Amino acid sequence: MQKGHLITSEVNMNNYNFGIVGLGVMGRNLLLNMADNGFAVAGLDLDLQQARFLEAQLSEEHRVKVTTQAKEFIMALEKPRAIMLLVPAGKPVDLAMASLVPFLDEGDIIIDGGNSYFADTERRFNELSMLGLHFFGMGISGGESGARRGPSLMPGGDRQAYERLRPIFEAVAAKVNGEPCVEFLGNGSAGNYVKMVHNGIEYGIMQLLAETYDLMKRLYGFDNETIQQTFEEWNRAELNSFLLEITAQILKKKEGDQYLVDLISDWAKSKGTGKWTSQNAMDLQVPVPVIDAAVNMRDMSTYKPERLEAARLLPWNGPGIDQSAEAIIPRLKDALYFAVITTYAQGLAQLTVASETYGYELDLQVVTKVWRGGCIIRAVVLEDFRKAFVNQPGLRNILLDSTIAQKLLDRQASLREVLKDAIANGIPVPAYVNTISYVDAYRSEKLPTNIIQAQRDYFGAHTYERIDQEGIFHTLWD
Amino acid sequence: MQKGHLITSEVNMNNYNFGIVGLGVMGRNLLLNMADNGFAVAGLDLDLQQARFLEAQLSEEHRVKVTTQAKEFIMALEKPRAIMLLVPAGKPVDLAMASLVPFLDEGDIIIDGGNSYFADTERRFNELSMLGLHFFGMGISGGESGARRGPSLMPGGDRQAYERLRPIFEAVAAKVNGEPCVEFLGNGSAGNYVKMVHNGIEYGIMQLLAETYDLMKRLYGFDNETIQQTFEEWNRAELNSFLLEITAQILKKKEGDQYLVDLISDWAKSKGTGKWTSQNAMDLQVPVPVIDAAVNMRDMSTYKPERLEAARLLPWNGPGIDQSAEAIIPRLKDALYFAVITTYAQGLAQLTVASETYGYELDLQVVTKVWRGGCIIRAVVLEDFRKAFVNQPGLRNILLDSTIAQKLLDRQASLREVLKDAIANGIPVPAYVNTISYVDAYRSEKLPTNIIQAQRDYFGAHTYERIDQEGIFHTLWD
Repeated sequence: MQKGHLITSEVNMNNYNFGIVGLGVMGRNLLLNMADNGFAVAGLDLDLQQARFLEAQLSEEHRVKVTTQAKEFIMALEKPRAIMLLVPAGKPVDLAMASLVPFLDEGDIIIDGGNSYFADTERRFNELSMLGLHFFGMGISGGESGARRGPSLMPGGDRQAYERLRPIFEAVAAKVNGEPCVEFLGNGSAGNYVKMVHNGIEYGIMQLLAETYDLMKRLYGFDNETIQQTFEEWNRAELNSFLLEITAQILKKKEGDQYLVDLISDWAKSKGTGKWTSQNAMDLQVPVPVIDAAVNMRDMSTYKPERLEAARLLPWNGPGIDQSAEAIIPRLKDALYFAVITTYAQGLAQLTVASETYGYELDLQVVTKVWRGGCIIRAVVLEDFRKAFVNQPGLRNILLDSTIAQKLLDRQASLREVLKDAIANGIPVPAYVNTISYVDAYRSEKLPTNIIQAQRDYFGAHTYERIDQEGIFHTLWD
Repeated sequence: MQKGHLITSEVNMNNYNFGIVGLGVMGRNLLLNMADNGFAVAGLDLDLQQARFLEAQLSEEHRVKVTTQAKEFIMALEKPRAIMLLVPAGKPVDLAMASLVPFLDEGDIIIDGGNSYFADTERRFNELSMLGLHFFGMGISGGESGARRGPSLMPGGDRQAYERLRPIFEAVAAKVNGEPCVEFLGNGSAGNYVKMVHNGIEYGIMQLLAETYDLMKRLYGFDNETIQQTFEEWNRAELNSFLLEITAQILKKKEGDQYLVDLISDWAKSKGTGKWTSQNAMDLQVPVPVIDAAVNMRDMSTYKPERLEAARLLPWNGPGIDQSAEAIIPRLKDALYFAVITTYAQGLAQLTVASETYGYELDLQVVTKVWRGGCIIRAVVLEDFRKAFVNQPGLRNILLDSTIAQKLLDRQASLREVLKDAIANGIPVPAYVNTISYVDAYRSEKLPTNIIQAQRDYFGAHTYERIDQEGIFHTLWD
């Protein structure tokens, strides 16, 4: 078949295996990935420039059609049609669906591959079901290069529809030990939900790496080269992960004499998935304080003018540090490992409760397997988590696995030392401190929330429970 | 007029000044407060028991009618009618409104006095406007005894309707230096929003007091009597506040030989307003990490079975403490004062952004004035905040007021010492650590979020901004 070309004159009816709507970074790269794997793929984008940009990247072997016309796009697809949307979450998804639906036939499949809010996925499933269309949400992670060379795919919802497309997804997904990083995860909006929590964990780990860099730079006074080499070395052992790897690469990048990282503004953007994770965790009553801290710090970064004023009004001179880099670096490494495990623990605990609440029937052994490769939070440590879920299906928190607990026990002293330095010297480490608070609260047989129960009963007659008797009680306190 | 009686046979047409729907703790006590102040009040509750319970508390002087019949209730009120709902947030409010509306006339006023979600208030305002009815939301704080003897009232929305009822609300509200703790706060759902954030701050301070108790008990080994006396003494000076006062009273309460607080379960309940505050703060991109921690710790308290297992698997033996109570108590006092100010700072900063986002036109000088008396978070420190807003209208964060900043400067060393002890010894103090992280981040000219910008650009081509050039940039990192 000839090289795909834009707004083709001859219509290749029913020849293409798969359609992608939205040819931005993710859509374009996923389409090329599918084409590389021998599938005939049609791509639709209303923006002629996006369409042409994709066309420029096609090679002779690719069986690809690119168009800006919805009708032509749909007529090119073999039936039953399979169409994946890769458009921004929210209204654009509904608009894209509305533009396609009039041309579709019963039995066709629409897949939402974006970061849609999980409740929207449930609504869209119901709307499309009524029209006889299949619909499911599939989280896709791996960013630009993951989509191109092998992403992690998180499908959920319509198992039958997924099964029909499984060969395509397994071909394009990342592989770990030959196993593709895609597997059907669960009912309803499970795919989007798992991807949302994936992103929440991603926020947490990115924030931890930023804090580690800040500690090395502002507190311990390391230069960029030392920080870079330390991250690179850590990435060779148990901390090996995509995010650590790219952070080491980022720290290497220079413009002339200057490290690029020193020229980048500290005003951070975000697209909402981290926030959704925190907000929904609160609905489910699952504490995810590291993710909360990561969301808060991106927000705090935007208060630049106020921070400049506060810097002047609220100075602090700490006692400084009296230790060598040789003592500090292994301690920081332990602290980071402790914090990373705790961040995954919070996200995975959220998935457990979400699965029960929303009826997803998730198997966390499968989730951690899918996350091992291709995605942004891939890391060797996921193999440990997977083992924990294999050994103990239904494990409610990975910190209750004795092997993982031992890893924390071996490292908690180091983290406590690092936090002592940071707090004494006024370096903010909100994600790190929230890992130790979480673990210390989680391992507290008795929390001081008895005081809160008494206060609520005092001012609002909200009643309380007792440890020595069943029932609910109210006291006239004054 | 005779004592109100249940399901009256003779109908007193148009005689009553005010109607209250929902005769639970808050409704009953507010009604009695109004009746004490000479107003003729009608009360409606579909539950005969609640109605009878109120009747039993009436005295000869009260001009009160109690009924279980909506129609009779409405016919008793003078026109234009003024009816306040005090029913649980959510569906019950809509149901109560639906049962009343058919009997109402144009110009009648409905006030929602419960903890309704602010977006619901906007919706209800629109629904009732179309029927020619006035509607506004009014936060009420003070709990059981506040409602009875003088609450803090937070009305917003329909200023005209409020003005008509102002004499009643000013009569029943708490007074500080003769000024009533009620004032019209702003447009739309301002009343419910301010009350929501009030409750968020309440969650934060309750959690701080619980952590202070935990530090005294578990870390420093004080007995209940010492803790009680310390709280009582603190309450005589700059920490004076309703929540500290009642916590001191709670710690005094005994059952035989035992302190009641030791018999109360640590499984804490919540009704959602703290959670809403945190969730909405994230929507507004305002960090409120102390409130987040308070919400998380109520949730963490419910994980009792897991915590028992974690206690066994994740032990920690800290170095202990080598200081005297004489050294520790003043330090804890400073730490608490620092943390309380920071908690208010977060909630007030949220109100500033909410006011801009939702068009409330709040004046925080007025909000802090209304909060000085009657409400659960009343405290002498509010007078300082009010002064700060008087001196600098539009102040975006009270930490930027030099007088308040100085109070933090004087106390930050103490807080850092306390946190060193807590973290070294494994006592969870998530609200306290989030106060220092917040202040240390807020006073950071440069945060390490440049790393996060670079990571996002690396894996997602999300672009970044620079400190040396205008524009947005993308780098090919590898």
